[in-house]
Amino acid sequence: MEKNRSSDTVWHHATVTRVRRESLNAHRGVILWFTGLSGAGKSSLSHAVEEELFNRGCRTFVLDGDNIRHGLCSDLGFSMEDRVENIRRIGAVTKLFVDAGIITLTAFISPYIADRARARSLVPQGDFLEIYCNCPLEVCEERDVKGLYRLARRGDIQNFTGISSPYQEPTDPELVVDTGSLTLDESVNRVITFMQQRGVIDLVQ
Amino acid sequence: MEKNRSSDTVWHHATVTRVRRESLNAHRGVILWFTGLSGAGKSSLSHAVEEELFNRGCRTFVLDGDNIRHGLCSDLGFSMEDRVENIRRIGAVTKLFVDAGIITLTAFISPYIADRARARSLVPQGDFLEIYCNCPLEVCEERDVKGLYRLARRGDIQNFTGISSPYQEPTDPELVVDTGSLTLDESVNRVITFMQQRGVIDLVQ
Repeated sequence: MEKNRSSDTVWHHATVTRVRRESLNAHRGVILWFTGLSGAGKSSLSHAVEEELFNRGCRTFVLDGDNIRHGLCSDLGFSMEDRVENIRRIGAVTKLFVDAGIITLTAFISPYIADRARARSLVPQGDFLEIYCNCPLEVCEERDVKGLYRLARRGDIQNFTGISSPYQEPTDPELVVDTGSLTLDESVNRVITFMQQRGVIDLVQ
Repeated sequence: MEKNRSSDTVWHHATVTRVRRESLNAHRGVILWFTGLSGAGKSSLSHAVEEELFNRGCRTFVLDGDNIRHGLCSDLGFSMEDRVENIRRIGAVTKLFVDAGIITLTAFISPYIADRARARSLVPQGDFLEIYCNCPLEVCEERDVKGLYRLARRGDIQNFTGISSPYQEPTDPELVVDTGSLTLDESVNRVITFMQQRGVIDLVQ
């Protein structure tokens, strides 16, 4: 019996591949990596894009502060070191999701070029689509949806991106969306059109 | 224009819920948490179950040493502290996958009761299905598919579960599969039947 058991070696094998999942889903798995200042609209835009994609029958998931900072990265703060580790783990998770054939949207400030480049390096070329939510600091601060800029200016929040911590703009993102001047609908359309052009989703769906 | 922008507050909202995803997928998202000794057949069984589920049109994903230890947890070793953190992170990731509506299979020794209980606590009751791959240590060691038991007995591997590190058997798992005596097909059938009984997948599919 034990002898029979040793055929285990051939058992341990992932037969459900990414290609098969993508075929079942009828779309590619990709990462839409939204980056930009706090208040630039990353979270709003990613959720609105997800709604649009879901209505077209796509399998999607949004990773954002709500489901990452309270879970996987609950042990991390906002020091430079912790921010690097935060984005490292998020990158590793996006790789899993994209291997699962899912259109994976991330909505994190992700302020450092090196960290975004590392996340990009984890997946095959063309699977990591960096979308810069371009919104001037003044507009973000004027909006101050969460009241964080006010706290940061008062010094009540340390290491706040744009105020007391740097934001490194993407030098060569796949897409720039001017979230400071476009409406949400316009921004969503930009992303969807872009995805159609990239062949991630069909033109007519 | 900025005034208009401040309607951002209502935008930032996840509208694609787990319920909607499950409806699109036509099955529930659950976690099948396989636990057991090294060589008990967790990885083989989880991949074979995944193949069966995928052929029924289910959305699935397997988390195992191959895609976790080289990625998300590449910074962790096998000390007790690192094992705890390893399973903590895996638990957090399974929560994300189940929120994404996916049947999520994990194939980790996960030797400590407390760690499995913590992973279970992250999701609603009934979503975490603990499956004990019950295989006597002697059988696992006789198989020694990866040659690890031999190395552990020689002292070349430290903290090896069953040899130099404890394995805490589940006290109340949702399912026990006697992988030491059943064939792989028999084991797969046990899991599939169990999932049908639990209403995770349809009886006829």
